[in-house]
Amino acid sequence: MSTHGITSPAGFSAGATNAGIKPSGKPDMALVVNNGPRFDAAAVFTRNRVVASPVKVSRKAVADGQLSAVVFNSGNANACNGARGDEDAEALVAEVSRALSIPQEDIAACSTGLIGEPLPMDRALAGARAVANDLGTDAEHASAAAAAILTTDTVSKEASYSGPGWSVGAMGKGVGMMAPSLATMLVCLTTDAAVEAPALQHALDAAAAQTFNTLDVDGSTSTNDTVILMASGASGVSPTQEELDTAILKVCGDIADQLQADAEGVTKRVKITVEGTETDSQALNAARTLGRDNLFKCAMFGSDPNWGRVLAAVGMADAEMDPENISVYFNDQPVCLASTGAPGAREVDLSGTDIDVRVDLGTGGAGTAFVRTTDLSHAYVEINSAYSS
Amino acid sequence: MSTHGITSPAGFSAGATNAGIKPSGKPDMALVVNNGPRFDAAAVFTRNRVVASPVKVSRKAVADGQLSAVVFNSGNANACNGARGDEDAEALVAEVSRALSIPQEDIAACSTGLIGEPLPMDRALAGARAVANDLGTDAEHASAAAAAILTTDTVSKEASYSGPGWSVGAMGKGVGMMAPSLATMLVCLTTDAAVEAPALQHALDAAAAQTFNTLDVDGSTSTNDTVILMASGASGVSPTQEELDTAILKVCGDIADQLQADAEGVTKRVKITVEGTETDSQALNAARTLGRDNLFKCAMFGSDPNWGRVLAAVGMADAEMDPENISVYFNDQPVCLASTGAPGAREVDLSGTDIDVRVDLGTGGAGTAFVRTTDLSHAYVEINSAYSS
Repeated sequence: MSTHGITSPAGFSAGATNAGIKPSGKPDMALVVNNGPRFDAAAVFTRNRVVASPVKVSRKAVADGQLSAVVFNSGNANACNGARGDEDAEALVAEVSRALSIPQEDIAACSTGLIGEPLPMDRALAGARAVANDLGTDAEHASAAAAAILTTDTVSKEASYSGPGWSVGAMGKGVGMMAPSLATMLVCLTTDAAVEAPALQHALDAAAAQTFNTLDVDGSTSTNDTVILMASGASGVSPTQEELDTAILKVCGDIADQLQADAEGVTKRVKITVEGTETDSQALNAARTLGRDNLFKCAMFGSDPNWGRVLAAVGMADAEMDPENISVYFNDQPVCLASTGAPGAREVDLSGTDIDVRVDLGTGGAGTAFVRTTDLSHAYVEINSAYSS
Repeated sequence: MSTHGITSPAGFSAGATNAGIKPSGKPDMALVVNNGPRFDAAAVFTRNRVVASPVKVSRKAVADGQLSAVVFNSGNANACNGARGDEDAEALVAEVSRALSIPQEDIAACSTGLIGEPLPMDRALAGARAVANDLGTDAEHASAAAAAILTTDTVSKEASYSGPGWSVGAMGKGVGMMAPSLATMLVCLTTDAAVEAPALQHALDAAAAQTFNTLDVDGSTSTNDTVILMASGASGVSPTQEELDTAILKVCGDIADQLQADAEGVTKRVKITVEGTETDSQALNAARTLGRDNLFKCAMFGSDPNWGRVLAAVGMADAEMDPENISVYFNDQPVCLASTGAPGAREVDLSGTDIDVRVDLGTGGAGTAFVRTTDLSHAYVEINSAYSS
């Protein structure tokens, strides 16, 4: 984990301000600006059919593989506000365009917060002007940006990676609604590598599949999930696709670990591996079915080695299995072999924060998959029953 | 709701005993016996791939459309106990067969409780003999049987229906793990109508689809779910298929209402209707996606009219929709129209126990579906994090 994230690569500046969108008065707007010389970019977005207005703006902006800046706000998702929401998102990037003198069509927007409340545009526009006037390339400006995109997050998430002569930086936010289509999750990555947009998109797709898309906190998904990667080319170094893939995967993995650790109400970090089914996608289906099962998640909260709930959950998965030959391991100790309790299964110690669950579905097939999830705790219920009030 | 359930139809006797399977010392075994003259029967079982040993026994027993008795135990699911579990389930019905002098292959078995612990057979066999010696046709015996199948249920569930000269009775249990493939749910229905097994199966399939299979408390499903319907023919009356369907639907609906009301940790009963999609099955997918969404369920617990979570949830459903034209109504008040907040939406009063949610996915299609769910409360987490300890 690094304290110098989004501006560690050359060519990027960032900043934040308190625009008054959040009732708490905390920082709630940020800008990340690519100063070039190159402006290659890639992005992945929520797979939710209901998408927020800033997602529409960003999709359009990145369609040509070029971005110069991303404007962020927290405290308001600008989702489900109809034509007004679309107009507001456009007006916000237009204001950034004027303030920075860069084309409007090269500016993406990310919003996170409550759905269904119009963005307070006077404050948002004033905030955009304020942050455009206070950009910097130092760690303080990067950290201020990372702090300004938080909602119920308890800590900022930043990461970086250094290659030979080039680097990658990142910031992210996200705590709940983490599901295979990302999360209420915003992540911005920067690199000073000189690479074209298709190479960036390849690296980002591969990394997202292995990191953000294996993070399944509550099966819920957001209208706003966005991951944006911008490349300034300022290092003059062009890494190979493999080098780029490795770097982006590392930084995404770092941010994903931080997201999981800060997930709403988490007391346990649960890593689930499923194997012994015919294909990887069947294994993934079983792993997600287990990772979303509330009875299993409550057992994890209670440090309860209740492996019967694992079998009950995976039994409903869309995966080939041998129902009489399922094995389950908690923290590498067998608790169920051939679908039957293993000796000492009830005494396995799950009192630690990290719990490792491995399930073999018993077909002998080579399919395997991995997901991260969390327990279902009182705090999760508390946070999510009082969010909008 | 009736206090005289399973023995209200002529031809049935029932009983219960305390066999010592439950550590609490509460009643934990029951028998329901069909004394004829007819023995037609039908059943529906869990769709979970991992099934308990008693489910295997019952599937085999009912395959010919004939049953004479069902033996129940609570406190132990006899699931995931391997070959030993299958042998134990067979031994239990063999003991009932000897005690009642009826063929073993006409006896079904239902177990509910903890998964993965072998059934204490000395106690179970002694219990089977004890309950076989104390059968009765009165309300007390019926109620004792209904009480003996409970686990974390807080109240017994019984129901009955009277047709012209014939009747239907029922008992059930179930509190968690309620999902479209039934629940940790056992239901036994009796009727003195003279009807053949295919007519019973038709009535039961149709009723289960509209009642138990619309009940989705936590998306989890059980290894033991079983609904059995036995017909004694003792009334001498043969209702039409339509009359039978109506009666079975009524009784199943009554039991389903009682199951929902007693679901683990419930503070809200939520009825979800989805319409405006192309097909009923798409509407059902959307209704279930919403009914299982933890963020939505937490909002219901908090009496929070957070309609944005409804849109975020249905947006992930496998259903045709118009993302810009979704409407949401809480207790018949519009909170979202054309995917945008309706005036006064945040002030809608959801403080009552019953919450009605209607979602129109905006395609103009005729598809519609209904499910019942519950909120996600602190008590749910409490009960399910401490179940096996």
